[in-house]
Amino acid sequence: MAEESKNNATMVVFDGDLDKAIASFIIATGAAAMGKNVTMFFTFWGLNVLRKEENIEVKDKNFLEGMFAKLMPRGPGKLKLSKMNYGGVGSHLMKKMMKEHNVSTLPELMELAQDLDVKLVACTMTMDVMGLRKEELIDGLEYAGVASYLSEAEDANVNLFI
Amino acid sequence: MAEESKNNATMVVFDGDLDKAIASFIIATGAAAMGKNVTMFFTFWGLNVLRKEENIEVKDKNFLEGMFAKLMPRGPGKLKLSKMNYGGVGSHLMKKMMKEHNVSTLPELMELAQDLDVKLVACTMTMDVMGLRKEELIDGLEYAGVASYLSEAEDANVNLFI
Amino acid sequence: MAEESKNNATMVVFDGDLDKAIASFIIATGAAAMGKNVTMFFTFWGLNVLRKEENIEVKDKNFLEGMFAKLMPRGPGKLKLSKMNYGGVGSHLMKKMMKEHNVSTLPELMELAQDLDVKLVACTMTMDVMGLRKEELIDGLEYAGVASYLSEAEDANVNLFI
Repeated sequence: MAEESKNNATMVVFDGDLDKAIASFIIATGAAAMGKNVTMFFTFWGLNVLRKEENIEVKDKNFLEGMFAKLMPRGPGKLKLSKMNYGGVGSHLMKKMMKEHNVSTLPELMELAQDLDVKLVACTMTMDVMGLRKEELIDGLEYAGVASYLSEAEDANVNLFI
Repeated sequence: MAEESKNNATMVVFDGDLDKAIASFIIATGAAAMGKNVTMFFTFWGLNVLRKEENIEVKDKNFLEGMFAKLMPRGPGKLKLSKMNYGGVGSHLMKKMMKEHNVSTLPELMELAQDLDVKLVACTMTMDVMGLRKEELIDGLEYAGVASYLSEAEDANVNLFI
Repeated sequence: MAEESKNNATMVVFDGDLDKAIASFIIATGAAAMGKNVTMFFTFWGLNVLRKEENIEVKDKNFLEGMFAKLMPRGPGKLKLSKMNYGGVGSHLMKKMMKEHNVSTLPELMELAQDLDVKLVACTMTMDVMGLRKEELIDGLEYAGVASYLSEAEDANVNLFI
């Protein structure tokens, strides 16, 4: 029984690059399809994966928070490749080549993950630090801190930092 | 018995930088020397570690695939450092300093890994997306997708994303 | 009993960026507070996190070692963000925003980690390669190689490469 419970998977999604986000959701949906409980914990730049694409006006941001929010990419459509991005040309080409080979897009993978009950958790501490508010992030998320991640990780044997 | 089998190690080699490739093969050969079954799963830029150094002409590539293949480094000799690469000076110096301290080179580590039966797996989905063909990669590889990686990861307690 | 011992946590701290270093120490101190034995293994650029801030003159360095030591950041105060560093402006702003939200600074997190008996291990092989000497690193470290890391990882279920 204790044995059984060690079969889950957790991922810390830290980087928030397009290619790493795609890799993390491919692993997450694959693991969920195999019947694992999967938790993805989004922190630091990884939070940008969860941002809504539209500009959400938030009144109570201070100057720094507003600036960070402006400079960071809003959602999957704006993410950059970790390599060979070439000002967005690389990420555009990568999406084109994925389409040609019928690989799901990042928004499709994210929807699939939610359909498969992959738990998407936004790290509240880094949300605070970066000045991101819940209304700027997509629906269906949970909000928690590192202790919650660690207690999930305890029951997992696959724990990745991406 | 179920216990025993949870002692393997898997690595997702994603980045394909010289320094990260070296680190991953040092961990892999170390783990194999301790008797673990080790599987390295090369995906995205990590596939470049497995490319042959010579230029392999592949007839049926489309324009984008040909361009990606041209821009991405061919094999261990062309990989860059993730930091302080300085247009190749950094990676040259790193190799020189490794040699001075009798640390194995990346090609030597890769050969050792294969001698120790470390399983080197190329991710077929990203090969498709990036237009890399089997004849462009070194010999002795296995070819598989994420489901195969996940079933190996199930039997491992060390699972790293590099 | 064998079961019990699989509850530890290990981290390979490879990158040595400010944000990744903060994330690794937040996870490490969180895990230690939950009663886990935590080992952080610093290698390659991660060693820079452990450098003393002052310039330590080391007599027997060769030219390359001296140059690397000069170019690499000395300790937590000099680390860069992995993204949006903007020549140091980004890392300065990140520290400011962390302070505003009462998040511990990296030096505070490192002290806390040592108070909580998190084992900080410097990788001797990469110290050799990069020409870093024990007297250049902070006190309270252990010194070991990859075999030692792997034997710790054997008893852990959370193993991250950061």
